Amino acid sequence: MEQTVRNFKEHLRRMDAYNHAFGVLNYDSETAMPRGGSEHLGMTYAVLSEEMYRMTTSPELKAMVKEILSHKEEVDYITRREAEELFEQMERTEKIPMEEYVAYQVAQNEASNAWHTAKVTNDFALFAPHLEKLVNYSRKFAGYWDSSKAPYDVLLDTYEKGLSMEVLDKFFSLLRAELLPVVQAVVKKGPVVDDSFLTKRFSLAKQRKLSDRLMEVLTIDRNHCNIGEVEHPFTTNFSKDDVRITTHYHEKAFASSMYSVIHEGGHALYELNIGDDIKYSPLGGGASMSIHESQSRFYENIIGRSEPFLTYILPDIQKLGPRALKDVSAHDFYLAVNKSEPSLIRTEADELTYSFHVMIRYELEKQLIAGTLAVQDLPAAWNRMYKEYLGVDVPNDTKGVLQDSHWSGGSFGYFPSYALGSAYGAQMLKVMERDLPVWDLVAKGDLKPIVAWLTERIYRYGCLLKPNELILKACEAPFDPHYYVDYLKTKFSEVYGL
Amino acid sequence: MEQTVRNFKEHLRRMDAYNHAFGVLNYDSETAMPRGGSEHLGMTYAVLSEEMYRMTTSPELKAMVKEILSHKEEVDYITRREAEELFEQMERTEKIPMEEYVAYQVAQNEASNAWHTAKVTNDFALFAPHLEKLVNYSRKFAGYWDSSKAPYDVLLDTYEKGLSMEVLDKFFSLLRAELLPVVQAVVKKGPVVDDSFLTKRFSLAKQRKLSDRLMEVLTIDRNHCNIGEVEHPFTTNFSKDDVRITTHYHEKAFASSMYSVIHEGGHALYELNIGDDIKYSPLGGGASMSIHESQSRFYENIIGRSEPFLTYILPDIQKLGPRALKDVSAHDFYLAVNKSEPSLIRTEADELTYSFHVMIRYELEKQLIAGTLAVQDLPAAWNRMYKEYLGVDVPNDTKGVLQDSHWSGGSFGYFPSYALGSAYGAQMLKVMERDLPVWDLVAKGDLKPIVAWLTERIYRYGCLLKPNELILKACEAPFDPHYYVDYLKTKFSEVYGL
Repeated sequence: MEQTVRNFKEHLRRMDAYNHAFGVLNYDSETAMPRGGSEHLGMTYAVLSEEMYRMTTSPELKAMVKEILSHKEEVDYITRREAEELFEQMERTEKIPMEEYVAYQVAQNEASNAWHTAKVTNDFALFAPHLEKLVNYSRKFAGYWDSSKAPYDVLLDTYEKGLSMEVLDKFFSLLRAELLPVVQAVVKKGPVVDDSFLTKRFSLAKQRKLSDRLMEVLTIDRNHCNIGEVEHPFTTNFSKDDVRITTHYHEKAFASSMYSVIHEGGHALYELNIGDDIKYSPLGGGASMSIHESQSRFYENIIGRSEPFLTYILPDIQKLGPRALKDVSAHDFYLAVNKSEPSLIRTEADELTYSFHVMIRYELEKQLIAGTLAVQDLPAAWNRMYKEYLGVDVPNDTKGVLQDSHWSGGSFGYFPSYALGSAYGAQMLKVMERDLPVWDLVAKGDLKPIVAWLTERIYRYGCLLKPNELILKACEAPFDPHYYVDYLKTKFSEVYGL
Repeated sequence: MEQTVRNFKEHLRRMDAYNHAFGVLNYDSETAMPRGGSEHLGMTYAVLSEEMYRMTTSPELKAMVKEILSHKEEVDYITRREAEELFEQMERTEKIPMEEYVAYQVAQNEASNAWHTAKVTNDFALFAPHLEKLVNYSRKFAGYWDSSKAPYDVLLDTYEKGLSMEVLDKFFSLLRAELLPVVQAVVKKGPVVDDSFLTKRFSLAKQRKLSDRLMEVLTIDRNHCNIGEVEHPFTTNFSKDDVRITTHYHEKAFASSMYSVIHEGGHALYELNIGDDIKYSPLGGGASMSIHESQSRFYENIIGRSEPFLTYILPDIQKLGPRALKDVSAHDFYLAVNKSEPSLIRTEADELTYSFHVMIRYELEKQLIAGTLAVQDLPAAWNRMYKEYLGVDVPNDTKGVLQDSHWSGGSFGYFPSYALGSAYGAQMLKVMERDLPVWDLVAKGDLKPIVAWLTERIYRYGCLLKPNELILKACEAPFDPHYYVDYLKTKFSEVYGL
């Protein structure tokens, strides 16, 4: 058994190297690669993913995993969880024929390129055949994985163990029932502050300095976390040693980058604080996309858009920013960055209307995967729902159905994570407030105890625990979306004096 | 045989994917990776280089290569040259035991990290043990490859087929005899222009725009070539589809980035214009470092520091640059960027003294590899030679022996390429002037015919031809360093009115 565990760990080390290389290739293609390099990158992806397929499904690995799993009591808990994790990956991968697995990687790469062009040129038709391919692959793969369940439920389960349309339908219908009236009340009330200071020219060099300051407040170790610049911010990590956040700077929208940095910084804090004992292990990453989003959105909205935080950080912003910011009060700044207004772009949406952007995507991808909505009809359906729920007219597909990259990467079932994560965060806050003087700490800019609390209950476990186990650990109760609804109702009643 | 060739090409495609991944990992580590990621990167390098070793030396590949080489007449020229190339790589790699090959990759990575820190902290002692390791590996590997020759000759041969100390000793002694008197005459004469306008504040944003303009003049297709920002500029390519140049911007030294862009742009032009028929082949890169440097230094110095080019580009610089540049004449600008002055830093050295920086490194690494100079005595030897040949006192190792990254990457035998390349370029110019109205074209900013001429005679061949064959193609004669000596003597006599 000792020898088996040694061989197993060696196999994991090799898989980790390929994942690392794949991750860097992908990061590079988003941040540095000239677009003309994409064909060659596709060829390289094909070769490496073939090798990864082989490693994930190799008979030697299978034998090792089976041996470990049939003698669970003889190995430590980490090894046991690694074997379980690998067994699942193996089962999932094996069910896809290798040619399809490789073809899918290539299709993904092509779709991503087509989407980039389609978005710039507002040409959904260019992207449509690629999207259709990815939808078909996803439906097919879902069938391979578990033909007894609805394909979309199978996909949801890959992002969040145990998640289903049943859970999400209830969740979103609660949000519709409780929050749509708030959205409407806010619209009726109209602006409560002149927020034009948010659109004054703020030089990119100074915004970069503000990013550095925010990273410092977030307690992020720059020796293990860089900031890249891209069109669509994201975070990636190759291990807790090397985490990359990204942002985008616009001279006349400094708050956009500011909140990107805090959001991505939240993802980074999760990865940077995973336990050292699993740092190069397949368990050494966030437990699920929802748990991840619970962190990014916790720092971005619950902390980052709170009045104590804004009171603390405003002097730094005023020192770097344009003259127009000099006379702004912390309270006005708080009102401005919490301005709620139904709008077109998810990533720029306020906290209150945000979940409806997600809900629309959820409803649409549910139908795409079920086959009840054809790809060619997607833009019209999108525009209809934006009108129905948010009351906005979508002027073109660039600002509509083409705005997000997720579908171009074949991610169907991912979007709900954003809304779920926000809700998890609100529930965590409740328990944290019991243990820590959260708002006193935030007012002093001292986030260390908060990060430590989350590390203790969530971060350090990586994938050792499942999402629902982590929620239980952190919240001492199962998930309950009412905390989120209450949080938003209270906050926006306060901001808008409802 | 048809089947063998198909299998051979498939094997090459796999090797190319690994090279591609390796290249991107390396580029990323220089441009984006937080330093804390280096340990994990080392682990990944180890896994991938083991796989590359296996692929390069696999019995299947060996059988295919042997079959192709014993039926050369049945295959096309490219396949034949690929087989020859692979046979050489295989022989070279196989002679190194796999554990040593992998250990060397890891040592290289560690040395590179140590050098970064040592340079910043001016701590040669920190770097010394790593350098010693790399020197020992290089000497040992040279012995594996050809124990009948002096180790340094074996290393030189890996950078430039057929190059030897005999050739280089003659070359550098010609330069010493012919050019040292010019250097001394220039020192005696003193400054011929007030070049303080070169150190006026030039905003980074505007310098980035100047880079874009230079890339355009160089006829570089940005869809296949990006500009990254690093401390030590370099160029890398993963195929002709994806070439990356890098530069560094200093607000008060715009000419430094300007010439980095032109220099690296020369490397890029070579790679971007390699024949499509070999673009993903192991032959699809520059033929040797010297030929590469002949191009980078041709554009940087022969074109980029010529009066016609400067007359053409100055208005663009004036449009973007500081007020102090507005009244500068093209002739004064020409005199300023050709100011010759013995100095400390190779990459910032002028064209005339440059070769002596290289010569010093050549003499030192020759001794390091021969074992007649101990690593611990290197800084003193360095400082002594800088005093002897360039008359300058080296104030610290950061500005002395630690300035270049090459040795920290295990590159011994690389430096001479810079001087040789410069000399090749001067010889090419002579023939080009016969075929093209070179200076009329440059005066109009029309570099297309020049790039086309070089593509026809050099670029398109990639590694299909050997360096000496390329020199013969381009210059219609074997290498003759007198062209270089004459070129420099004429130019600097003109600049300094000697």
